[in-house]
Amino acid sequence: MKKTLAIIALAACTLSANAQGFKQLHSPEITADSLIFTVIAPNAQNVRIQGDWMQGWGGEAMTKGADGKWYYRTAKPSPEIYMYNVSIDGQSSIDPTNFRIFRDGQSVKSLLYIQGDKEPYVAYDDRSSTQKGQIVKRWYNSTAHGYARRLTVYLPYGYDQGKQKYPVLYLQHGGGGDEDCWTVMGRVAQIMDYLIEKGKAKPMIIVMPNGMPIHEASADVMMPEQWVEDMASSDFMDGTNHVKSLYADIIPFIEKNYRVVAKKSHRAVAGLSMGGIYTEQITKQHPEMFDYIGVLSMGLTPQMAPEEFLGPVKNAGYKLYWIGCGKTDMAYSNAERSMKALDQMGMKYEYFGELGGHSWDTWRKCLFEFAPKLFK
Amino acid sequence: MKKTLAIIALAACTLSANAQGFKQLHSPEITADSLIFTVIAPNAQNVRIQGDWMQGWGGEAMTKGADGKWYYRTAKPSPEIYMYNVSIDGQSSIDPTNFRIFRDGQSVKSLLYIQGDKEPYVAYDDRSSTQKGQIVKRWYNSTAHGYARRLTVYLPYGYDQGKQKYPVLYLQHGGGGDEDCWTVMGRVAQIMDYLIEKGKAKPMIIVMPNGMPIHEASADVMMPEQWVEDMASSDFMDGTNHVKSLYADIIPFIEKNYRVVAKKSHRAVAGLSMGGIYTEQITKQHPEMFDYIGVLSMGLTPQMAPEEFLGPVKNAGYKLYWIGCGKTDMAYSNAERSMKALDQMGMKYEYFGELGGHSWDTWRKCLFEFAPKLFK
Repeated sequence: MKKTLAIIALAACTLSANAQGFKQLHSPEITADSLIFTVIAPNAQNVRIQGDWMQGWGGEAMTKGADGKWYYRTAKPSPEIYMYNVSIDGQSSIDPTNFRIFRDGQSVKSLLYIQGDKEPYVAYDDRSSTQKGQIVKRWYNSTAHGYARRLTVYLPYGYDQGKQKYPVLYLQHGGGGDEDCWTVMGRVAQIMDYLIEKGKAKPMIIVMPNGMPIHEASADVMMPEQWVEDMASSDFMDGTNHVKSLYADIIPFIEKNYRVVAKKSHRAVAGLSMGGIYTEQITKQHPEMFDYIGVLSMGLTPQMAPEEFLGPVKNAGYKLYWIGCGKTDMAYSNAERSMKALDQMGMKYEYFGELGGHSWDTWRKCLFEFAPKLFK
Repeated sequence: MKKTLAIIALAACTLSANAQGFKQLHSPEITADSLIFTVIAPNAQNVRIQGDWMQGWGGEAMTKGADGKWYYRTAKPSPEIYMYNVSIDGQSSIDPTNFRIFRDGQSVKSLLYIQGDKEPYVAYDDRSSTQKGQIVKRWYNSTAHGYARRLTVYLPYGYDQGKQKYPVLYLQHGGGGDEDCWTVMGRVAQIMDYLIEKGKAKPMIIVMPNGMPIHEASADVMMPEQWVEDMASSDFMDGTNHVKSLYADIIPFIEKNYRVVAKKSHRAVAGLSMGGIYTEQITKQHPEMFDYIGVLSMGLTPQMAPEEFLGPVKNAGYKLYWIGCGKTDMAYSNAERSMKALDQMGMKYEYFGELGGHSWDTWRKCLFEFAPKLFK
């Protein structure tokens, strides 16, 4: 009986119903102190691997073993969730034998998880938390765009048991993201569940809208697709419609549909990379709305006049202006420009720089540092 | 300015920050009447493609063009969302230049969307629906497992505006799935939004738990992973713990936390493939709970005695016993066995067979046919 049922089950797992079956190779192998990646590409001449844990963008060569498979061995990096790709004769893709992937907007990478004793900023061990919040995916009507758009809402544990009103963090993704990326790659629920349960952060609602100008929802939802060819349009970069939708549609929608405190003292806005620019745009246009501002892996670009963007924030007053950007982050010069301007204008801010590059490990750490400072 | 910002945005889209940039090849090309897949694998000797729209499992050969790229041209199949993989010298993976992917449990495939004028059973055109429901991901405490597990809830449009109580469909995934697959590949929200807005189905809540014995949540959430090597264990196949959790934990959790009518007349249970077996198990053990039963791409296996499984359902009474399974579905002999037994026992049922194989196009169509018959 078991065998018959097993065959049904195997085939029922339709996506795996290929010739390799279940006992196939799965890469990478993780030992006590090293990683071993294996790629089957018997006729390839050049196989490379590029991972978040490496320095730079070029990747490193894999070497062909006597068995005809390609190998890459390296020392085990520090505990983290990494992303990587493999390139075979110049064509980049996921690691074919690793089913764990992250789709970030219009790109897919393989996932590598290195376990450690204590990685609280990603709250890896899900079973350690018993007070877990909810993630809600829903649509709001965007008057700024003229159609419905999708957003993600994190509701803290206990939201639907009580009558309490909550503060809200409006959290923007970057130029390749969508409404899924902060909860999937950013692990918002795991981080916030941990921080709230341990008393390190106030219970709060987090709203993560889709901020892409031509996409109303993530690629999982949207049919047909629209390929992002041009990220240089002004709507893309200054977020004209998205920023308008944020204050005209999204905030009213959230304040109507959830138990929130609709006050400046209970609103925060933050964003990473392009979402950092959106954050700078909305706090310039509506500084009366937010007491807490977070700019992650971004800052004022050379084209953004400090007085124009920071003057309104200074005049309206604020409780926290937080910048999270590591020195190796490609946006660090913008973060430096912001800090210099804030200093010159006599505006208080906090800077956190114990971060890596322009990648999700950085943004998870930013959330882990930033969230405890909110609504205190 | 635009150029500077564009560079930031490009790099901000971290996952795409490889040498190919944004203007890279993306496969497949879809013309008025054909599909053209292109794979760059200059040194490969055997490149194949296997898609849902093909007959059988073997796939078809791609051919090397004069430019060194591999091509596969075929007539455009009928409007649908298909999944496919590419195999290069025996190693199967996604199409490297197609960022649209579906992860189904522990397997990843490329997505192909063929647009058509009318595909109501997938409600492809999201903008056509203005009354969109919510998808909620949350955790419940499983006494059957001894830890928290994740489930997905579809809430129909208007749920949080009114006081109405709703009926509930408990919907199980198959042997390779998780709590994400029905909403992502099964497009539950798009289908139900469409059916409810058009008045074809009653507004209802749909609950989609994770039914995998060793996984409390999908691979996006769970760290570390556990690789499913053995699907032949009895817990896997008869769902011992999951079925127990369904009636002892999940249904009480839903009935406590949502506005639902907690009656047999307002509960339905269904599942695909392995989830069909779970459906047969729970209706055998608790036939007093459900008036509506749906078995998709499954039926009684040779090891399941008809009297043992169907007798309790007959005695308790029911309003609908629905079987959806196409003749080319590998589980069709089980569906036939169920129908024969139902006939012999004088039990009414409905059969829907205008379906393809054991794949998501079939299960989307099943939901589209089954949901309108519920709670009438």
